[in-house]
Amino acid sequence: MKVIEKPKDIVDSSKIELQAGSSMTHNRKRRSFLRNSIAMASGAGALGVSAVASGQDLPVPESNKQMGRSIPPEEYGLPSKFEAQVKRRRSDILVNRQNFSDWSMTPLQSQPGITTPNGLFFERHHNGVPDINPDTHVLALHGMVRKPLKLSMSDLMRYPSVSKFYFMECSGNGLTDWLKPASKTVQQTHGLLSCAQWTGVPVSWLLDEAGMLPEVKWLIAEGADGSAHLRSIPVEKMLDDALLVYAMNGEMLRPENGYPLRLFIPGWEGNVSVKWLRRIKAGTEPWHVRGETARYTDPMPNGMWRKFSFVMEAKSVVTRPSGGMNLQRGFNEIQGFAWSGNGKIAAVDVTVDGGKTWQQAVLEDPVIDKCLTRFRFNWNWQGGPAVIASRAVDSTGYVQPTVEDIKKSRAIVGFVQHHNGIFPWNVSASGEVTNGIG
Amino acid sequence: MKVIEKPKDIVDSSKIELQAGSSMTHNRKRRSFLRNSIAMASGAGALGVSAVASGQDLPVPESNKQMGRSIPPEEYGLPSKFEAQVKRRRSDILVNRQNFSDWSMTPLQSQPGITTPNGLFFERHHNGVPDINPDTHVLALHGMVRKPLKLSMSDLMRYPSVSKFYFMECSGNGLTDWLKPASKTVQQTHGLLSCAQWTGVPVSWLLDEAGMLPEVKWLIAEGADGSAHLRSIPVEKMLDDALLVYAMNGEMLRPENGYPLRLFIPGWEGNVSVKWLRRIKAGTEPWHVRGETARYTDPMPNGMWRKFSFVMEAKSVVTRPSGGMNLQRGFNEIQGFAWSGNGKIAAVDVTVDGGKTWQQAVLEDPVIDKCLTRFRFNWNWQGGPAVIASRAVDSTGYVQPTVEDIKKSRAIVGFVQHHNGIFPWNVSASGEVTNGIG
Repeated sequence: MKVIEKPKDIVDSSKIELQAGSSMTHNRKRRSFLRNSIAMASGAGALGVSAVASGQDLPVPESNKQMGRSIPPEEYGLPSKFEAQVKRRRSDILVNRQNFSDWSMTPLQSQPGITTPNGLFFERHHNGVPDINPDTHVLALHGMVRKPLKLSMSDLMRYPSVSKFYFMECSGNGLTDWLKPASKTVQQTHGLLSCAQWTGVPVSWLLDEAGMLPEVKWLIAEGADGSAHLRSIPVEKMLDDALLVYAMNGEMLRPENGYPLRLFIPGWEGNVSVKWLRRIKAGTEPWHVRGETARYTDPMPNGMWRKFSFVMEAKSVVTRPSGGMNLQRGFNEIQGFAWSGNGKIAAVDVTVDGGKTWQQAVLEDPVIDKCLTRFRFNWNWQGGPAVIASRAVDSTGYVQPTVEDIKKSRAIVGFVQHHNGIFPWNVSASGEVTNGIG
Repeated sequence: MKVIEKPKDIVDSSKIELQAGSSMTHNRKRRSFLRNSIAMASGAGALGVSAVASGQDLPVPESNKQMGRSIPPEEYGLPSKFEAQVKRRRSDILVNRQNFSDWSMTPLQSQPGITTPNGLFFERHHNGVPDINPDTHVLALHGMVRKPLKLSMSDLMRYPSVSKFYFMECSGNGLTDWLKPASKTVQQTHGLLSCAQWTGVPVSWLLDEAGMLPEVKWLIAEGADGSAHLRSIPVEKMLDDALLVYAMNGEMLRPENGYPLRLFIPGWEGNVSVKWLRRIKAGTEPWHVRGETARYTDPMPNGMWRKFSFVMEAKSVVTRPSGGMNLQRGFNEIQGFAWSGNGKIAAVDVTVDGGKTWQQAVLEDPVIDKCLTRFRFNWNWQGGPAVIASRAVDSTGYVQPTVEDIKKSRAIVGFVQHHNGIFPWNVSASGEVTNGIG
């Protein structure tokens, strides 16, 4: 008989003997960790369970006594009205709406599992969301190719496709919260991050069709939106794992995520995965467009700015507990996400004492390359202040840095991109969870 | 450099040499299979690609010339208006609406990837969808336990959780199409099938908390809906991998899928995964409720009816091409899903000649236990009639049977449950795809 084991990595400050795993088998006389932790924390009932004494304690709910809603002839379903607070939200920290350059953020504090529902997937646009008819949309491949190509969506969808789980993170994720707290919730601090299973056609196949010339070093992708968003991308990455994506999470792309076609550059900053893709042009040099000079560059300590910082390096964040939550004493599962643009997550460490000590969290399967990985860590909170944070290690051996570490090689002035520093949450003596930066 | 390879398993009736994989590397002089197949099928342009001669062939679309839609302060996003045809649909083959016992079906023909969007996840209700407030919902564990328990949703959500990818299939999936065609599309023939990543708490942990007595052999689960749906489940399965599920695909359950709490019994017929779960009672015998006598039973050749047929055995179906589509000559990727309630999918074979010959399809990663697995198979259709079908093999060695095989051990009379037979699609000489049963 298989048994899903309770996690074994537990912070147990009271040294009560733990009996994980085997307590879930048929040996029902052994007391489990959870019951121990309930008793330890505040006597029986710390998790709120109460005895059912008789049939009178099992009242039949009203929903058992009436017919429910019937099924309409056709429908695209929506969440319960009781979940109306779970929305993606526009930033209220930085607002820049004169040119429709804006973003919305994913409620990571409410996301179980690894994929983000399409209705909650974060957005970033430079000039709003176009409403493109797939029947007239055309992708062109041109420039230094022997045979320039134009493809309709139906052309493209006749190719074999591949489906891959990948995270997507905006380079600006966390830019308001480097040195002191600006944001309250993990939706505001880290919500320019989502994950999906993406479906499309490898760019390499089409470049092969077009007969790309051997001297090509860079390609540029352009969107069909009002900003005509452009990014230059090195040929090696385009041939490695770049995809022409038309679907996410089991359905066609959403308009705000590039419908009907986007480029997808796995593990790199989101803005290179050009949405509403209308052309890819091959050349020998980067084009030095606005998104590579005025935007998406990193200041260095010597006053220079680094132009290309494509890879989103290993990072993690605790989503539960996180800002705005109130902790109850006793057993708490610390949960969060870890991800790396350079490979798989190899390990995540968790601290509850502000980094004095770290312990290894459990990684939940499946652990997939360049995909969100969920970590879990059991904690018995006895009351009293705590500082919770996580630290990711990826398959290259890279360890998520502290902000102090990052400061050694980069200048943190203003709203700096590419923040992958360790991020703490403060827990007050009464259990209030707040942004712990600085 | 990593390269995503074009699939190598190709039906190539013209014997043109195939050059998969390496054609996508820097060796750009080699012609790829796809270009060969284009040329072979109907000359250049079989996939509709056309040359871009000059800048005049790249007109700037209107969407580049205007600002798009701005982001609202908060939102739960929806699909493009151009995807309005992708809906789950109520059955129009069998209608039984006098008691709100009904079902809706997933548009599998439109599902890339392995998970089904929650808005398209199939439904089956015995008396409509209740609208349950999670703040007042209670789960009771009682019967033969030392300490009966009542848990609120917030109690339950303090437990550690697990997230698992699993398919869900209704036992009645395919019941209209055993011997002759009744349905047109794969949504109608196989759409009582979906897949999600489910999040919840192992039932075994709570039974351990409650101190289940050693003599318990069966448990019964009851829903809080208008049908008070009940099913008896053997204790071994409850302790093995059954979950108390509150979330799917990265958000809380949808109302029609059991919000705020359902039982989830991996790999078994959907109706045992009782939705709107309000109690689990432990006992020594099955309860022989209506769902175990009047429903969900299988007729045998000897006139007797088999009462419990829990496991959904290995099955597969081609979703592209499928009923209602029109095939174009030349290259076509045959796609579909395979799944087994007994383990992982080990292999899928595809036939294009009605079962005379079979060839192995490519399985796409990740291949997960009791989860939808996508298979792909490259095919060059030269015109002329064809009969396409798939055959799954699971990790136990079980091979998906033909309907003729199933008839040897079961009576196929009326609307029989548990149809996992091989399912063919006919392709006419002009490329029209229709239900090929019988």
